[in-house]
Amino acid sequence: MSRSHAEIPDPAGLDPALVTRLREAAPLVQCITNTVTTNLVASAVIAIGGSPAMVDITGEAGPFAQIAGGLLINLGTPPAEQRAPMHQAARAAAQAGTPWVIDPIGFGALPVRTQLARELIELGPTVIRGNASEIRALAGSGSGARGVDAVDGVDEAEADAISVSRETGAVVAVSGAVDLVTDGSAVARIANGDPLFTRITGAGCALGAVIAAFAAVAEDPFAATIAACTSYAVAGELAAERAGGPGSFVPELLDALDRVDAGTVAERARVSLGAPTFAAAR
Amino acid sequence: MSRSHAEIPDPAGLDPALVTRLREAAPLVQCITNTVTTNLVASAVIAIGGSPAMVDITGEAGPFAQIAGGLLINLGTPPAEQRAPMHQAARAAAQAGTPWVIDPIGFGALPVRTQLARELIELGPTVIRGNASEIRALAGSGSGARGVDAVDGVDEAEADAISVSRETGAVVAVSGAVDLVTDGSAVARIANGDPLFTRITGAGCALGAVIAAFAAVAEDPFAATIAACTSYAVAGELAAERAGGPGSFVPELLDALDRVDAGTVAERARVSLGAPTFAAAR
Amino acid sequence: MSRSHAEIPDPAGLDPALVTRLREAAPLVQCITNTVTTNLVASAVIAIGGSPAMVDITGEAGPFAQIAGGLLINLGTPPAEQRAPMHQAARAAAQAGTPWVIDPIGFGALPVRTQLARELIELGPTVIRGNASEIRALAGSGSGARGVDAVDGVDEAEADAISVSRETGAVVAVSGAVDLVTDGSAVARIANGDPLFTRITGAGCALGAVIAAFAAVAEDPFAATIAACTSYAVAGELAAERAGGPGSFVPELLDALDRVDAGTVAERARVSLGAPTFAAAR
Repeated sequence: MSRSHAEIPDPAGLDPALVTRLREAAPLVQCITNTVTTNLVASAVIAIGGSPAMVDITGEAGPFAQIAGGLLINLGTPPAEQRAPMHQAARAAAQAGTPWVIDPIGFGALPVRTQLARELIELGPTVIRGNASEIRALAGSGSGARGVDAVDGVDEAEADAISVSRETGAVVAVSGAVDLVTDGSAVARIANGDPLFTRITGAGCALGAVIAAFAAVAEDPFAATIAACTSYAVAGELAAERAGGPGSFVPELLDALDRVDAGTVAERARVSLGAPTFAAAR
Repeated sequence: MSRSHAEIPDPAGLDPALVTRLREAAPLVQCITNTVTTNLVASAVIAIGGSPAMVDITGEAGPFAQIAGGLLINLGTPPAEQRAPMHQAARAAAQAGTPWVIDPIGFGALPVRTQLARELIELGPTVIRGNASEIRALAGSGSGARGVDAVDGVDEAEADAISVSRETGAVVAVSGAVDLVTDGSAVARIANGDPLFTRITGAGCALGAVIAAFAAVAEDPFAATIAACTSYAVAGELAAERAGGPGSFVPELLDALDRVDAGTVAERARVSLGAPTFAAAR
Repeated sequence: MSRSHAEIPDPAGLDPALVTRLREAAPLVQCITNTVTTNLVASAVIAIGGSPAMVDITGEAGPFAQIAGGLLINLGTPPAEQRAPMHQAARAAAQAGTPWVIDPIGFGALPVRTQLARELIELGPTVIRGNASEIRALAGSGSGARGVDAVDGVDEAEADAISVSRETGAVVAVSGAVDLVTDGSAVARIANGDPLFTRITGAGCALGAVIAAFAAVAEDPFAATIAACTSYAVAGELAAERAGGPGSFVPELLDALDRVDAGTVAERARVSLGAPTFAAAR
C-alpha cells in the first residue's frame, strides 16, 4: 500500500505543555482493569503525574466515575463481577462528562469480551485504544487477532481506525511500531517508541491509563491522546537506553515516565499530522 | 499547631531486636489484600523474613487465620467474593489470638469499603494502619479523602488516632512524611522514610503486611508496629540512595528489606516516644 | 538415604534445541493463574519466547484451550468464579491434545484447592509441577506443607513423584535446590538454580508457565519439562550474578530468560538422568 501523507512533523499535532499541566493538576484516574497488569497501570499513572484509583466494584465504580478526572476501562480479563461496574462507570462518566478510555483487549478473538466491548462502546467512550487487530475487528474487517497479540500492521488499520472513529465519535489510537491516532478526519503518526514495549506485559494497558490521565487535563481528546502516546513512547526510548532487557525495562520505564517533561517530549517527538491517506479516505 | 512532645529519641520506643526475631521465626503471614499490590505485599513479607500466604477464599481463610502467625486484611479493592472470607479470617484470628492488621483504604471516601471496614473493626483488630485522611474519617472528623490519597497531614490526625485507638483498643498507625503510632496513651513518631514512598503503588499496603509480620513475633503490638514502621522506613531510605526513580525504587526497596538488620535499624532510627501533645490529649 | 543413581550428565536427558524451537514458534500459552503472580507468569512466558494469554473466564477459557499451544492451571488463589473455567479449559485441552500443566499450590494444606486439584488431575494433566510437600501430599504421604512452603526435601519426594507419575500418567516436576523430573520410569535431576528463587514471590508459578511453553513445542513432555526447568534455573544463575537481592533478582531473571539461548543452556546445564534410586523404585 503506497503512502501519500506528509512525514514532516506538524507542531499543531503535539502539545507538550499538556505534560506540565498533567503534573500540576494530578488528576484522579479511575482504572477498571485486568489483574495481570494492575500494578503497572497504577504505577504508570503515578509516574506521569496522575493519582490512580482502582475503583471497580458495584456501589463505588459509578459514583467515583463522576468525580474522577478520567476513567480507563480495560477488558483484559473481565470477570463476571467486574462487568456491571464497568457499565456503571461508563454510564456515569458519560453523564458527568468525565473522559473515558476503553481498551478492548482481545476484541474479535474472544467472545465474552467482544460482546462486552460492543455494549460499552455504545455508551460513547472518549478514546478507544487497541492494537491493529483489535481496531480492525471493531471495524468488522481484519484477519483476526492471535490471542491478545496483533497480527495486522498499524498502516493496514488506518482506514478501519478512521471508520471506527467516525462511527463512534471516539478518538481511536492504534498502537504499534508507529502509533496512529485519529479523530476521524486528521491522522497523527507517532514514530517514537522501542521494540522492548512488545516484550513486556501490559505496555498497552499502561498506555490506556496514561491517555485517560492526559484526557483529564485537556479540552481536546485528540490532542490529549497524541500527547499521551508521544510522552509514553519517548519515556520508552529513554528507558530502553538504560535497560538490559524486558525485565529491567519496566522499572526504567516508570523512572522515565516520572522524569520526562515537556521539553524532552518536544525535543524527541517524531509526530506527523495529516489528512488520511488516499486508501484510508475512501 | 504547636508541638510540645519531646523530639529526643527514647530507646524504649523501638526494639530493634524484633528484626532479628522476625527473621529467625519466619512467621506465616496471611494476606487478604487487593489485586493491585498483591505481589509487592507478598514480596515485602518474604524480604523482611516472613512467609506470606495469600489465603482469601471461603473455606480456607478462616481455618488458616487460626494457624497463621499474623494476618493482614486490606480493603484496597474488595470484590464481593472476598468479603465473607475477610469476616471469617478476622473472627478466626480474634478467637485464636492471631494478631491482625486492618488497612481501611479509602475509608470515608468510598461507601462499600467504609461499611465493610466498620464491620471488621468491630471484630477487634490488633492494629489499624491508614493514612491521615482514613484515620480522621474513622474518628468521624477530617476533610475527607481524595480517592485513596490523604489530604490531611499526620499531625492533624494525632488526636483522631488516639481517639480511634481508645475506642477500638487497637494500635493505630498513621503513615505520612513522619509516621505516627499510638496505643491510645503514648505516641511514637518515626521520622525515617523517603518521598519516593509516595510515588509507588502499594507502599502502604506492603507496610500493613510488614506490621502483621512483626506482630506475629512480638508480645506487644505497639512495639511491633513501631519496629515495623521504622524498619520499613529505614529500608526505604537505603533504597532511595540507589534508586533512579519510582520504578527502580521498588526492587531496591525489596533488596533493602532483605538486607536490613537490627543494627542498621537501630543506627538510623529517628523515633521519638512521648505523651500526646496538648492538643491531642484534650 | 543413600543414592545410587549416576551423577554423570546424560545428554539424552536435555535437548537444548528446544529453547531455539520455542523462540521460533512463539506458542500461545494460556494461563489460568493466581492474582499474586500473574504479571510475573505472563512476563516469563514472553521472555522465554512464548505469547501469554490470561484467558480465565467462562465462555472463553474452554474454547481458547483448544487453540492454545499450551495451558497452565495454577491453584494459588482459586476464587470460586475461576474454578469452572479451570475445568472447562482442562477438559478442552485434554480433548484437543493441548499439553497442560497443573500447579497444585498448597495441596494437602488447604482444603478447597486440594479438592479442586484432585478433580482437575483426574482430567489428565500432561505435567504436574509442585514443591516436595505438595507432591508428597499428592501421593498420600509426607509431613504436610506449611502454608504454601515445602517442608520436605526433593530427595524425600522421589518415590512419591514416581508414584504420582505412574498413577496419573503425567510427568512430575518437583522444585527444590535440585529439581527432580520423572516420567515414572526415568528420573532427571537438575542441579542448576540459585537460592534467590526461594526469596521471591512466584518463582514456581512462573516455572509452571515456562513448562507449558516448552510443552507446546516438544513432542515429548518429559524432555520439555527437563528443558524448561534447566533453562529457567540457568537464567536464575545468570540473574543472581547481577542481582543485589530478591527485588532486583526479578527484573534480572526476566532479562536473563530473554537472553538465554540453547548454547548457554547446554553449557551451564547440570542435568543427570538415571533410573530411580533403590529406595524410590520399591
